[in-house]
Amino acid sequence: MITVAVDCMGGDVGPGATLPACAAFLKAQPDARLLLVGRPDALRDGSGLLDHPRVSLVPASEVVSMDDPIEIALRRKKDSSMRVAIQQVKDGHAQAAVSAGNTGALMAIARYLLKTLDGIERPAIATQMPNAAGGATTVLDLGANVDCSAEHLLQFAVMGSALVAAITGRDAPSVGLLNVGEEVIKGSEVIKQAGQLLRAASLSGDLNFHGNVEGNDIFKGTTDIVVCDGFVGNVALKASEGLASMIAGFIREEFTRSPWRKLSALVAMPVLNAFRDRVDHRRYNGAALLGLQGLVFKSHGSADAFAFEHALARAYDAASRGLLDNVRQRIARARPLLSPETLSELGNIPTI
Amino acid sequence: MITVAVDCMGGDVGPGATLPACAAFLKAQPDARLLLVGRPDALRDGSGLLDHPRVSLVPASEVVSMDDPIEIALRRKKDSSMRVAIQQVKDGHAQAAVSAGNTGALMAIARYLLKTLDGIERPAIATQMPNAAGGATTVLDLGANVDCSAEHLLQFAVMGSALVAAITGRDAPSVGLLNVGEEVIKGSEVIKQAGQLLRAASLSGDLNFHGNVEGNDIFKGTTDIVVCDGFVGNVALKASEGLASMIAGFIREEFTRSPWRKLSALVAMPVLNAFRDRVDHRRYNGAALLGLQGLVFKSHGSADAFAFEHALARAYDAASRGLLDNVRQRIARARPLLSPETLSELGNIPTI
Repeated sequence: MITVAVDCMGGDVGPGATLPACAAFLKAQPDARLLLVGRPDALRDGSGLLDHPRVSLVPASEVVSMDDPIEIALRRKKDSSMRVAIQQVKDGHAQAAVSAGNTGALMAIARYLLKTLDGIERPAIATQMPNAAGGATTVLDLGANVDCSAEHLLQFAVMGSALVAAITGRDAPSVGLLNVGEEVIKGSEVIKQAGQLLRAASLSGDLNFHGNVEGNDIFKGTTDIVVCDGFVGNVALKASEGLASMIAGFIREEFTRSPWRKLSALVAMPVLNAFRDRVDHRRYNGAALLGLQGLVFKSHGSADAFAFEHALARAYDAASRGLLDNVRQRIARARPLLSPETLSELGNIPTI
Repeated sequence: MITVAVDCMGGDVGPGATLPACAAFLKAQPDARLLLVGRPDALRDGSGLLDHPRVSLVPASEVVSMDDPIEIALRRKKDSSMRVAIQQVKDGHAQAAVSAGNTGALMAIARYLLKTLDGIERPAIATQMPNAAGGATTVLDLGANVDCSAEHLLQFAVMGSALVAAITGRDAPSVGLLNVGEEVIKGSEVIKQAGQLLRAASLSGDLNFHGNVEGNDIFKGTTDIVVCDGFVGNVALKASEGLASMIAGFIREEFTRSPWRKLSALVAMPVLNAFRDRVDHRRYNGAALLGLQGLVFKSHGSADAFAFEHALARAYDAASRGLLDNVRQRIARARPLLSPETLSELGNIPTI
C-alpha cells in the first residue's frame, strides 16, 4: 500500500480540481491511500470523499498563494497545506507528496524539511515532454537552478536516469546534454566540462551518455533524458508551451472563420480530437523534485482535475517503483566521479 | 537601386534553390540588382538568369561545405562563394550579402572581412518568429555567442531595436529580456545586471524596455524584440522547430490513418492550408547578422526557393531602409551607458 499526501489547496483552482482528481485516482488505484491536506471546511465538498476508506483528512489552516514570496511561504505560513503535506513524507506517513502550488515555495519548503540526498548539492525539477518517437522525453532541470556547474549537470543526469529507470523499468536510459551543436567542441566552458564528466561516467558504466543534443532533439526523442541548466530548461519548456498554445489558437481560428469551415471542423472532429489527445500536455502533468530525501511532485498550477490526477498517478508510480532508493544508489555509485581528484584528472580523458 | 550579393552555392540545395529564388525576387523587386556569386558552370542553369539586365556574375571557384570547420572556411577557402559575396559588400559593390551556408563560417568570415561596428564587441544573429498577435517577434542572439555579459545583452537590445525600426518604420519597438520569471529579482547575476542596464537605457530614452519576459512571450508577441544569450536563443529556436515539426507530423499521421480520415482531410484542406501558411517558417527565413560594418543575412541551410526568396527580400528591405545607419546611430547614442563609470553606478539605479 502506497500513501500519497495531497496539498488539496494549491494551484489556481484548489479543491475544485484536486478533490475530483483524488476521487478518480482512488478508483484507478485500488492499492493507494491518500492523505488530503487542507482546511477541513474547504475539503468537505459534499462528495463523501472524506468518508472513503482509503482517505484520511490532515488539517492545515493556511494556504500558500501563487504569488507568496518564498520567505513568507517558508517562515510565516508554518501550517500551510503545502508544508503539512511535505511533513507527512518526512514523518513517514506518506511515501510522496503532490502540490499544484507555487514552484519556488514548494522547492524551498521541500528542501528545508526533507534535506537533499548525500552527494546532491542542488535538487532539480524534471518533467516529461511528448516526443515524435511516440514516447516522452524527460527534461531537467526546469527552473530550480539558474546557474549550474558541470558537476550539477552530472548529478541531474544521474537523477534523471534513476527517474526514467524507475518509471519505465529500463536500467540504462540514454542521456543527452543540451547544447548548441552536436560536436564536443561546442558550447560554453561549463557545458564542455559537463560533456567530459558525462563521458567519464559513461565509460565507468554509471550512465548511458549519448552525447550532445540540440533543442529539436527534445521533441524528436533522440534520447530518453535531456540535461540542461534550469534557465535553459525553463525557457525551452515555456517557449514550447507558448508555441503549442499559439498553434492551437490558429487551428481554432481557422476552423471557425466561416459556416463552411465550421462544418468541415465537424467532419474533421475525430481527427482533431485524436490529435489533441496526442499533444495534450495534461497527460504529462507532474514534475518530479529530484535529489531530496523524500518524493515530492509538482503539478502545473493551472491543472484541472484530469491533469491533477495524472500528477497523482506519477507520484504513486514513482513511489511504488522505488524511485528514492534508485536515485540514492545511482548517486552513491557516481560519487567517486565527483571527487576533486577525478575532476582534476578530467583533462586526461580523451574527448571522443 | 539596391544591390544584393548572393552566395548561390551555399545551403543544402545550392543553385537548385538559390537561382529560382533570385529569378522570382528580381520579378518582385524592379529596383533590385543581384550579384550571383559562385562557380560559373554551376550558375549556367539554362534559365537565362545570367542574361537578366539586373544580374551580374561574380565568379568564385570554391564552396564552403555545411560541415567545414571555421578554420578551413576562413583560412583555406579564400575564393569561396561565401567569402566573395561578403567581399562585394566590403568593396561597396553590394549593400547586403545573403548566404544559406554554414552559420559559423559565415559569421567568422563576415566578422573577419567587415569588422564590427564601433562600440560592438560581439555581433549577434537575429531572426523573426511568428506570434499569436499576428506579427513576428525578433529574437537575438541565436547562436553566435554562448556566454554573454550584461553589456552584450544591452548591445543586442539596441541592435534588435534598430533592425525592427528599420523593417517596420516604428521608432521605438519594445524590448523584453528573456528570463525565468517576470520579477526583477529572477535570473542569474548576468541577467539581473542586464535588466538594470536595460532599465537605465530606457530611462535615458535610448530603448523601449518592457521588462523581463518568459519563453512563452516569444509566441504571445508580448514585445517586438526578445533578447537573450546565444545558447538560450539557439535552444529556444531549435526546440520550437522540433515541436512544430512533431505537431505537423502528428496532424499528417492522424489525417491519413484511414480512408475516411483521408476524406475528411480533403474537406478540411482549405483550413489546413490556411493554417500551414500561417505557421510556415519559410516566410520568416533570413536571419540578420547584426553589429558588423556591412549587412549580411543568413538563410536556413535547408531553404527551398520560396524560403530563400524571403531571405533575399529581407536583406533588400533592410538595405533599402538604412538598417546599417540605424544600428550605427543607436549604438553611438547608447555608448555612454556602456562606459565603465556608468556600469559602476548601476547600483544606484532604482530597480522598479
